[in-house]
Amino acid sequence: MKELINIIDKKLDEYMPVCYPEDIFKAMKYTLSLPGKRLRPVMCIETARLLGCNIDKVLPSACALEMLHVQSLIHDDLPCMDNDDFRRGKPSNHKVFGEANAVLAGDALLTFAPQLIIEKSKELSAEQIVRILHEYTKFAGAYGLIAGQVVDIESEGGKLVKSPEETLDFIHLNKTAVLFRLAVRIGVICADGDEKIFNEFDDFATKFGLAFQIYDDIMDEISTFEELGKSVGKDEKSGKLTYVSLYGLSEAKNKFARLIQECYDIIEKYNSDIFREILKKLKNRILG
Amino acid sequence: MKELINIIDKKLDEYMPVCYPEDIFKAMKYTLSLPGKRLRPVMCIETARLLGCNIDKVLPSACALEMLHVQSLIHDDLPCMDNDDFRRGKPSNHKVFGEANAVLAGDALLTFAPQLIIEKSKELSAEQIVRILHEYTKFAGAYGLIAGQVVDIESEGGKLVKSPEETLDFIHLNKTAVLFRLAVRIGVICADGDEKIFNEFDDFATKFGLAFQIYDDIMDEISTFEELGKSVGKDEKSGKLTYVSLYGLSEAKNKFARLIQECYDIIEKYNSDIFREILKKLKNRILG
Repeated sequence: MKELINIIDKKLDEYMPVCYPEDIFKAMKYTLSLPGKRLRPVMCIETARLLGCNIDKVLPSACALEMLHVQSLIHDDLPCMDNDDFRRGKPSNHKVFGEANAVLAGDALLTFAPQLIIEKSKELSAEQIVRILHEYTKFAGAYGLIAGQVVDIESEGGKLVKSPEETLDFIHLNKTAVLFRLAVRIGVICADGDEKIFNEFDDFATKFGLAFQIYDDIMDEISTFEELGKSVGKDEKSGKLTYVSLYGLSEAKNKFARLIQECYDIIEKYNSDIFREILKKLKNRILG
Repeated sequence: MKELINIIDKKLDEYMPVCYPEDIFKAMKYTLSLPGKRLRPVMCIETARLLGCNIDKVLPSACALEMLHVQSLIHDDLPCMDNDDFRRGKPSNHKVFGEANAVLAGDALLTFAPQLIIEKSKELSAEQIVRILHEYTKFAGAYGLIAGQVVDIESEGGKLVKSPEETLDFIHLNKTAVLFRLAVRIGVICADGDEKIFNEFDDFATKFGLAFQIYDDIMDEISTFEELGKSVGKDEKSGKLTYVSLYGLSEAKNKFARLIQECYDIIEKYNSDIFREILKKLKNRILG
């Protein structure tokens, strides 16, 4: 997996130029370059690989996913949103480049990601590119990631349109699971996988995404700044709706364990070292 | 032209749903629904029509252009950017929905616009859609609109990397001309026009965009809030780099007149009432 992360890091650097006006490109590149687990591109590439697709075909889309993820982090950290001063252990984007550039760097990543898919996916057909961009636009916007973020912010303000349980599900599905789903769906499209496989990986990614968010909720409760590279204990302070606040730490751990097991069950037949490693690492952090 | 604007307004309303979570869709729809000249979609549709393309084929892309334009207005008005409380005569987006929702509404429009092109352009081929989305992503991002905005902000802070003249050209080309260029380029692609026609319309839109920005600079100097629906005299107050501040009002008017004449010359042979009307209106406001 380390090798794959190195390939992704190298490609992210290569794909992201710094030209005039440098401030915007530097701001884009800054958060993109902070060391991360690159989980979304890894899952995208591994899905495609398991289905027989070569890595060059899927790399541009995989890197675009990380750009989309980083875009959401930059905007989430803004003072008017979560107001976070740190990200991945470093000052967040607006702390370094100012708020205006952070807003614009996010905007620019949001359009640069699909531009990259179009310009670099030489081996994909026009139909495949349109399908990928359709997935991208649906999941990145008001029907996905942004819907999750909006309901998350509203729930912090105590404004709930649906029940707390439904609201939490909506936030977790849209704020977190959505990018893992997008990752495997794009992987399947690059590999020309059929509908059954598409749904199978989608199911896997949905469950993984929920497990990942519960993991995040638990870590915010039990971890340290040094371990996470971002502020902790913020959820409780802000009265945020999380799996831990709604169901308690013990039930959160149980639900997490069940979801991880279901992920194992779905992916088992593909015999993927990488997916096994991802699941194991996540599991061990919470369940020891 | 009024008729065409009505069609665009109706389609914008139809294309833009309000579903859960309503706050984000309402925020997107709010600024989109404020009465505007709809110049970019009008120019896109008229270009396609002049080249023999039916309106249904181009309407989704034309409406997507207005969404992109509105996205840039919402983010430009933010307190950390131009800090404008009014837009099109009404409170700007963040004044109504709050800053967080205004940032997210802009993000959502930026992905909803290409989603619309993909979902509604039933009569276009996958190749045409990829070409349109390529233009869209290039012109909307750090190689276009956002580059213009970044240099504009920097120039206000007195930070110039290039000479004032080059900087101003860069801002005008990227902040303003870019969306008119995108409009006619997409129009030509929808109509399957050849390269010569593509370049001709691109040249027209570049000159029109420059004229339009000089018009805007002049209006900020000589107009009123009631006439423009937004704050005036801000350029001078903020020491902004504009055509008027750099070359003076008289030379600005001369340059404007020359550009408008060049636009007439390029477009003359197409015998378009709509382009003639657009040029005439703009010209009369400045030159009487």
